[in-house]
Amino acid sequence: MDDKYFITRRSVRRYSDKKVSRELLDSILREAMKAPTCGNMQLYSVIVTRDEEKKKELAALHFNQPAATGADVLLTICADYHRFTRWCEINGGYPAYDNFLSFTSAVTDAVILAQQIVTIAEMRGLGTCYLGTVTYNAPKISELLHLPEMTFPIAAISIGYPAEEGEETERLDLSGVVYDEEYPELSDDMIRNIYKVKEEFAPNKKFVEENGKENLAQVFSDIRYPRSLNEPVTADLLEFMKKQRFL
Amino acid sequence: MDDKYFITRRSVRRYSDKKVSRELLDSILREAMKAPTCGNMQLYSVIVTRDEEKKKELAALHFNQPAATGADVLLTICADYHRFTRWCEINGGYPAYDNFLSFTSAVTDAVILAQQIVTIAEMRGLGTCYLGTVTYNAPKISELLHLPEMTFPIAAISIGYPAEEGEETERLDLSGVVYDEEYPELSDDMIRNIYKVKEEFAPNKKFVEENGKENLAQVFSDIRYPRSLNEPVTADLLEFMKKQRFL
Repeated sequence: MDDKYFITRRSVRRYSDKKVSRELLDSILREAMKAPTCGNMQLYSVIVTRDEEKKKELAALHFNQPAATGADVLLTICADYHRFTRWCEINGGYPAYDNFLSFTSAVTDAVILAQQIVTIAEMRGLGTCYLGTVTYNAPKISELLHLPEMTFPIAAISIGYPAEEGEETERLDLSGVVYDEEYPELSDDMIRNIYKVKEEFAPNKKFVEENGKENLAQVFSDIRYPRSLNEPVTADLLEFMKKQRFL
Repeated sequence: MDDKYFITRRSVRRYSDKKVSRELLDSILREAMKAPTCGNMQLYSVIVTRDEEKKKELAALHFNQPAATGADVLLTICADYHRFTRWCEINGGYPAYDNFLSFTSAVTDAVILAQQIVTIAEMRGLGTCYLGTVTYNAPKISELLHLPEMTFPIAAISIGYPAEEGEETERLDLSGVVYDEEYPELSDDMIRNIYKVKEEFAPNKKFVEENGKENLAQVFSDIRYPRSLNEPVTADLLEFMKKQRFL
């Protein structure tokens, strides 16, 4: 392994035509499944999308972002208490996983698995990118992939051989994110100081200009993730949570 | 790196007295922060607990499990929209992250970070263990660590130099968890077959016997994670979600 892998890694949004072999994909998934899991229950499922037609339909639900349309493989990683609950019922148990606590356990399991897949795939020379859009269209994605009750698609990853290096992105300083012993009272000045690194990052400055906003914070809150988007999507998500029996 | 790391890794629940240096801990955290994050917003915080008194109090909220009481470092990884929201407000934006969609984004960010910390720490020779108890006592842990509104402690990790190899654990076969193109209709027989590997794993057989149950599924559903535990904890969690403004 390259010792610098973790500190230099980048997400990849453009892929070459080269196919990912089934053997490689399976070995990545098999190794990733050794990641920690709550009570060793493995509260997750992975749907592999490779069929071209299905990929088009799924990519559309990810707003046809290039990272979705151009990838050889799309993985949808689901928090899954369906399979486990069925197993308990078949065996005469009284499973009680139709609740929010269980949702948090399954979501944690699924995201741990997702990140392990990303790390292993990248270490093997593949490029990956999370599609954060998965939660925006969770109900429709679930319909397309036939996800049953007590599942929730919490992470989506595109995988392929990289056709680009991946964009450099800035990160906050450790002191802005890691707190000793307790969460500090953050003054306005401290917060300004924490985010300065983002505000001064050249691509972000360009981003502010292009969006005609006063500053980067406004681009995030008023354009990229505004109330007009978050609130209707949340309404759908809460309905979906009830349908899936997690609320 | 050991090529076999991912497939052979185990969680460690007993630690030696050797201290983890601040330098090592910081370098692990700094590298982990290069993991993917939603819109590069870094919707997480890490509370580092090393003070002996605080560690005792925190370990008690993890039911004093040995993995918590004996570790040099406890990390509480929080989904965090507090800091980001404050930054937007200070800059004249109109942040709208007090909703469930934003909760899922921040939780995903936090768990990705947690798993990256685990992988890097283990690759450096440290032992780690997730404390799934974090969500059971999320309200009390938040009080102890002074977590503000719009944060949620979603993952806790103990870290130290290992005093044991870690227990071997079994995993389901890939075919039981990874599905091509869509979620299959799982017949009872298919489910029995998927979980056979767990039922036949020797330590699990002993576990069933010790608990006086008919089978492993019943141990999970009726003893380890029963309704009498999940439902009251969920009631507290939902209250807490409202207090934190995510519901």
